[in-house]
Amino acid sequence: MRSLTEALAAPLGDADATIQSMEDASPAKWHLAHTTWFFETFLLSEHVDGYEPFDPDWAFLFNSYYESHGERNARFNRGMISRPSLDEVLAYRAHVNAAMEPLLADDELAPLVVLGCAHEQQHQELLLTDIKHALFQNPLGPAMFDAARDPAAKRCEPEWLSYPGGIAKIGHQSDGFAYDCEGPSHRALLEPFAMRSTLVTNREWAEFVADGGYDDALLWLSDGWAWVQENDVQAPLYWRDGEQFTHAGWRARDPDAPVTHISYFEADAFATWAGRRLPTEFEWEAIARGQDCPECDAAFDSAAGNQLDAGRIGATPVMPRGGTELFGDCWQWTRSAYLPFPRFRPAEGAVGEYNGKFMSGQFVLKGASCATARGHSRASYRNFFYPHQRWQFTGLRLAKDI
Amino acid sequence: MRSLTEALAAPLGDADATIQSMEDASPAKWHLAHTTWFFETFLLSEHVDGYEPFDPDWAFLFNSYYESHGERNARFNRGMISRPSLDEVLAYRAHVNAAMEPLLADDELAPLVVLGCAHEQQHQELLLTDIKHALFQNPLGPAMFDAARDPAAKRCEPEWLSYPGGIAKIGHQSDGFAYDCEGPSHRALLEPFAMRSTLVTNREWAEFVADGGYDDALLWLSDGWAWVQENDVQAPLYWRDGEQFTHAGWRARDPDAPVTHISYFEADAFATWAGRRLPTEFEWEAIARGQDCPECDAAFDSAAGNQLDAGRIGATPVMPRGGTELFGDCWQWTRSAYLPFPRFRPAEGAVGEYNGKFMSGQFVLKGASCATARGHSRASYRNFFYPHQRWQFTGLRLAKDI
Amino acid sequence: MRSLTEALAAPLGDADATIQSMEDASPAKWHLAHTTWFFETFLLSEHVDGYEPFDPDWAFLFNSYYESHGERNARFNRGMISRPSLDEVLAYRAHVNAAMEPLLADDELAPLVVLGCAHEQQHQELLLTDIKHALFQNPLGPAMFDAARDPAAKRCEPEWLSYPGGIAKIGHQSDGFAYDCEGPSHRALLEPFAMRSTLVTNREWAEFVADGGYDDALLWLSDGWAWVQENDVQAPLYWRDGEQFTHAGWRARDPDAPVTHISYFEADAFATWAGRRLPTEFEWEAIARGQDCPECDAAFDSAAGNQLDAGRIGATPVMPRGGTELFGDCWQWTRSAYLPFPRFRPAEGAVGEYNGKFMSGQFVLKGASCATARGHSRASYRNFFYPHQRWQFTGLRLAKDI
Amino acid sequence: MRSLTEALAAPLGDADATIQSMEDASPAKWHLAHTTWFFETFLLSEHVDGYEPFDPDWAFLFNSYYESHGERNARFNRGMISRPSLDEVLAYRAHVNAAMEPLLADDELAPLVVLGCAHEQQHQELLLTDIKHALFQNPLGPAMFDAARDPAAKRCEPEWLSYPGGIAKIGHQSDGFAYDCEGPSHRALLEPFAMRSTLVTNREWAEFVADGGYDDALLWLSDGWAWVQENDVQAPLYWRDGEQFTHAGWRARDPDAPVTHISYFEADAFATWAGRRLPTEFEWEAIARGQDCPECDAAFDSAAGNQLDAGRIGATPVMPRGGTELFGDCWQWTRSAYLPFPRFRPAEGAVGEYNGKFMSGQFVLKGASCATARGHSRASYRNFFYPHQRWQFTGLRLAKDI
Repeated sequence: MRSLTEALAAPLGDADATIQSMEDASPAKWHLAHTTWFFETFLLSEHVDGYEPFDPDWAFLFNSYYESHGERNARFNRGMISRPSLDEVLAYRAHVNAAMEPLLADDELAPLVVLGCAHEQQHQELLLTDIKHALFQNPLGPAMFDAARDPAAKRCEPEWLSYPGGIAKIGHQSDGFAYDCEGPSHRALLEPFAMRSTLVTNREWAEFVADGGYDDALLWLSDGWAWVQENDVQAPLYWRDGEQFTHAGWRARDPDAPVTHISYFEADAFATWAGRRLPTEFEWEAIARGQDCPECDAAFDSAAGNQLDAGRIGATPVMPRGGTELFGDCWQWTRSAYLPFPRFRPAEGAVGEYNGKFMSGQFVLKGASCATARGHSRASYRNFFYPHQRWQFTGLRLAKDI
Repeated sequence: MRSLTEALAAPLGDADATIQSMEDASPAKWHLAHTTWFFETFLLSEHVDGYEPFDPDWAFLFNSYYESHGERNARFNRGMISRPSLDEVLAYRAHVNAAMEPLLADDELAPLVVLGCAHEQQHQELLLTDIKHALFQNPLGPAMFDAARDPAAKRCEPEWLSYPGGIAKIGHQSDGFAYDCEGPSHRALLEPFAMRSTLVTNREWAEFVADGGYDDALLWLSDGWAWVQENDVQAPLYWRDGEQFTHAGWRARDPDAPVTHISYFEADAFATWAGRRLPTEFEWEAIARGQDCPECDAAFDSAAGNQLDAGRIGATPVMPRGGTELFGDCWQWTRSAYLPFPRFRPAEGAVGEYNGKFMSGQFVLKGASCATARGHSRASYRNFFYPHQRWQFTGLRLAKDI
Repeated sequence: MRSLTEALAAPLGDADATIQSMEDASPAKWHLAHTTWFFETFLLSEHVDGYEPFDPDWAFLFNSYYESHGERNARFNRGMISRPSLDEVLAYRAHVNAAMEPLLADDELAPLVVLGCAHEQQHQELLLTDIKHALFQNPLGPAMFDAARDPAAKRCEPEWLSYPGGIAKIGHQSDGFAYDCEGPSHRALLEPFAMRSTLVTNREWAEFVADGGYDDALLWLSDGWAWVQENDVQAPLYWRDGEQFTHAGWRARDPDAPVTHISYFEADAFATWAGRRLPTEFEWEAIARGQDCPECDAAFDSAAGNQLDAGRIGATPVMPRGGTELFGDCWQWTRSAYLPFPRFRPAEGAVGEYNGKFMSGQFVLKGASCATARGHSRASYRNFFYPHQRWQFTGLRLAKDI
Repeated sequence: MRSLTEALAAPLGDADATIQSMEDASPAKWHLAHTTWFFETFLLSEHVDGYEPFDPDWAFLFNSYYESHGERNARFNRGMISRPSLDEVLAYRAHVNAAMEPLLADDELAPLVVLGCAHEQQHQELLLTDIKHALFQNPLGPAMFDAARDPAAKRCEPEWLSYPGGIAKIGHQSDGFAYDCEGPSHRALLEPFAMRSTLVTNREWAEFVADGGYDDALLWLSDGWAWVQENDVQAPLYWRDGEQFTHAGWRARDPDAPVTHISYFEADAFATWAGRRLPTEFEWEAIARGQDCPECDAAFDSAAGNQLDAGRIGATPVMPRGGTELFGDCWQWTRSAYLPFPRFRPAEGAVGEYNGKFMSGQFVLKGASCATARGHSRASYRNFFYPHQRWQFTGLRLAKDI
């Protein structure tokens, strides 16, 4: 699993892996090291007698936001860490991987190992979205992957998937891994509604733009309108004329592909313009639980798989083969704020800082994107971002009351 | 009803009524004029043939955030409007009041008139909180009201009010006035919980401070901790040693009075420290619907009533006589984000900009404060502010799962 | 002399006198009080046994930048001081004036009294420029003075005043009052040059604008171009179409009047565009010492005089009657940085903070404006502002090498 | 000469050469490419028929501030250019060097070639100061050079070098290369003064710190005090306890070495504290013209020379062997603003943007630092920086009136 991270970083040079384009993003090298630090700190240092850290100073460098684990390197300073080099960080990974071997058989530690792997999978996605944003800053528009295979998205006819209302079972319900914020499983009361079977496409978004969507204050949330004005927003992030910036550089935009890289503000304005609304996270999950999670849409499985799908990441995202596009194209904004489920308790200890502390000001996104690791998709997954953020593969799906 | 606004502004000079201390607050003169502009714009100009605006330029000056009604005077510029003077604005009020007389009997217009009055009541509260913040900037700490009567708060023993869970009816359910966001009335599913009968007091808050509450990152939401650090927050707004700034200037703090002027971040951190949590808006409303709304706690009824209670406003807030302190002491933060109820639709026309557009990033507060107009309190009322804001009379009430 | 200050403030209401439009400017009330504080602090408190301050708290409020005299009220907070009211401040002035009476005959104190008066004269000018900026923020464009008399400026033919070069005597050379920075008198070596007899007019400036002066980066200093871009500057401050904002509100612009309210950046760019340059302060002073200081141009002499000239202030500035427009129209940017003269020593004691501490980053302006008190003009006077500032009556005069 | 640039960059990895720590600084890779772009743009493209740019897109990337040469890559974005890689930039250098060969014999182009070399020498110094600042951000404090040889500075007794006053000849006076702003040569009138023979040392600065120099507002220029407060300045840049950050990492501070990395504000405050003042640029030059320029102090001569002196750069700067420390230790702040000399005219064409446009808000520094290329030192050289900047090797020398 961890080797995928190296595979994703393989096309990057030392400089590519070092730069940081904004506070929200981190350097690729940092992702490589921070995920390793997680294993070293929470597993090796605590459970292996006499384990010596690879380099004691690195704990400071590669901690992220665990306030209980000492002063952190100020977040925006991550892009200043030219040393250790990419090669040294890769050696760090090899060292920790080797040291972890004996622990993988320890059943007691299994939950922590699984958490470390899930954590790494999250950072695999962030590595991809962060480096995309960094390369985008370069006027030369450099490509990270080839885009040899770039199948056009199939045009699907949207349908309305109806739900009769009633009490739905929400939240993580199996024995598999899930983050603390996905539970406890609980009941939610839903009114009758319908959700569209397909995501909103670039073609539909272009109509919104052409209709003056970005110029009509009445379509926007108040904070959204302020954001549009202040940043002179006129299109999704990464749009330029008929093109879109991708991991394979600037490419022609596929009108039938789902729109991506939009903020919550944009998603909400679009829904208002379309006379619809965004679904709640509960509505989305209720629909998703009645559907099969389409495995074929998962983006990455292994390093091999990644080599195979590099073109896909490089290209504009393509429509999945059939299905309802729930997973594997883009994260879908819901109108639900990221808040605790009833009876939620943060996990004990340092890892308890993981999710609960972010429960203000953010919105839940459901599904999974083309950059999400395959095993990391499930109906109960709650991704969350601030309403102005859009450097992730974020899109939307419409809903309506019935 | 409107005469209360003038009564509240009576202790203010022209200069007092002109200054603006921050973007969130508005000058008293602006509140006086803006509420009048509402009647002139939505009633007189649209429903009285040949009505001439008092001054056509004032529409621009005193519009607030209605994007559909033309360019507004940039919000932070409100404090630059030394002219018209306070006297001229009072003349404007008299003029519009007189012109409104014939319309008060028109049943068709009644909903708009009622909305205009509710709007004015909101601004009465804002006038009080905004001028308090403005006077607080003055190192001389000037008083606006006398504080002759200042009864100490009674010390009440807190109890836990239990709720068995189940489906509760939430939202506005009577024929009386309510804002669009209070409806539609709908069902909500609640798990068993208990809510404390009393508000958190200054005494309890002082314990939190003494215990290092403001220095322990682990108690705080991530955004809250950043806010504490950036603003060097060490106590509620308006605290200074054993004193508290009030409308009657700096006064000794009553330990048994409810703590006020805290942010959501602080409320949440306190609850975490206390091993409890904040209630949801649905839990709060469910409890409140089982209680009588204690009329005796309402702050203002008439200009006369205001004269009477000026001391109360000037003083530190006092405990209500018995009851559960639901209304009339302070707004109580809930852990619910301010979002639309199921099947919510904004009102048609310009007044539809009233509430729906603020549905991102804010939290719901329930109850009513000592500065809330008496007729403006009801169980379905949804006040909302950003989690860092605390210049309103904001406090908290603890809840727990059972 | 001090009664002129009251006369200038006479058209202002309490609110007008309280507001502050930017950090560079101060409220009129503050000017009234601060100049009084100067007399109270440096004369009454130090030289009158048993003198009781009018109000001890006001020392904090009305100190300006004398670091040695205790913590100051943060500069941008001055606009929050709604109390004391304008009337109370006027009472403060009367109180201090009365207390000063006996000291006026004391020869030993005469230098400090003269400094206090010069200080007050500076603030008279600032009071006028600051309130103009504040009223300008008001979309209603209110007038402070009538503009009954508004004689059109006479069109003068510009001539070149030549100077042969050589050693000039620079700096304050008489027994009259001067600030410390005007001395010591010293020799300066000048190359041959010529300076224009007239100021640059609105007409000439309009040609610069029409020729794309604000759009051609090559005309500008690097910092100037950044300032133009960041603030989207397209014209002098207070220009709007063919109008100009004045103390008498919006008025038609007189093309033959000197251009005013320009920054150093603009003055320098204009000179470059015109193929000329700005004079140095030494060149300007050398020319001025060969000219009579035209008394008729001085703006104010007494309260009566002010009443008389209120229209002049209200109007666009008018050309002086003959002469070389050195004094009484506008301050003229020189290309000299504000730095100490050879052998300069700041005055001893607190008043020594007066000038020397501002000697970095600012440019010298010579002459006097239409808002400068009559007795406050002299050839050695060194006014100074940052190169981006332009809310004073600032203009320019061209020079060239010969 | 250009090979020294490569030699200086030799210890840097691709990531080291890419990062940018602040807007004032540029990545090493950018320095390498920008100096090359200068030769390509002003020599090859204009004077070689059929010359094809190495890569047409790079002109945009590696232009700096020549407004006449097209839109530039926003300055703070330079740190985002991970591609081209360091190797590719070195190939660019080789390509342009080869293409330049035939032009070196062309007498007509000699002035531009010399300018290009001088420009490169400036960037050699900036490369060293910028990478030092970037590595300083890294909590690991990485070293770029070894510090094998680190001779302690010799303790010199300071003497006062007197100057009798009179007319001095100032500005560039030989046939050698000089920037346009160093001329025209002209006369300046000086009063009698004395200048210290030695630079202020770390030992003296430590006394200033110990005496509360950073806490006494009265010692500081007004802007300087604001800068101290806002940035919480307590010592020169790169000081930490008894250590100093150098190109060889954190090293013990030599008390007898000249203090470096101080702002003009600090230099001025120190001089005030010491009861002295800073010299003017004219005083400094007049003294320097009476001294031999000590060749032995020049830091770099060739790549070989650089290898030799790497330890010197890495170490704390050392006292020169005898002499008056005019050149080769640190740039010395003067109290002269950076302004045009009499009859100054910017050079024609694009290279005319080189110096004149920076003539506002900056101060002149004289001498040369340990990072200045040997051939780049001369008495007429005018370096200039804003008064708050201190990432260069900046120090001071005291003067006094006599």
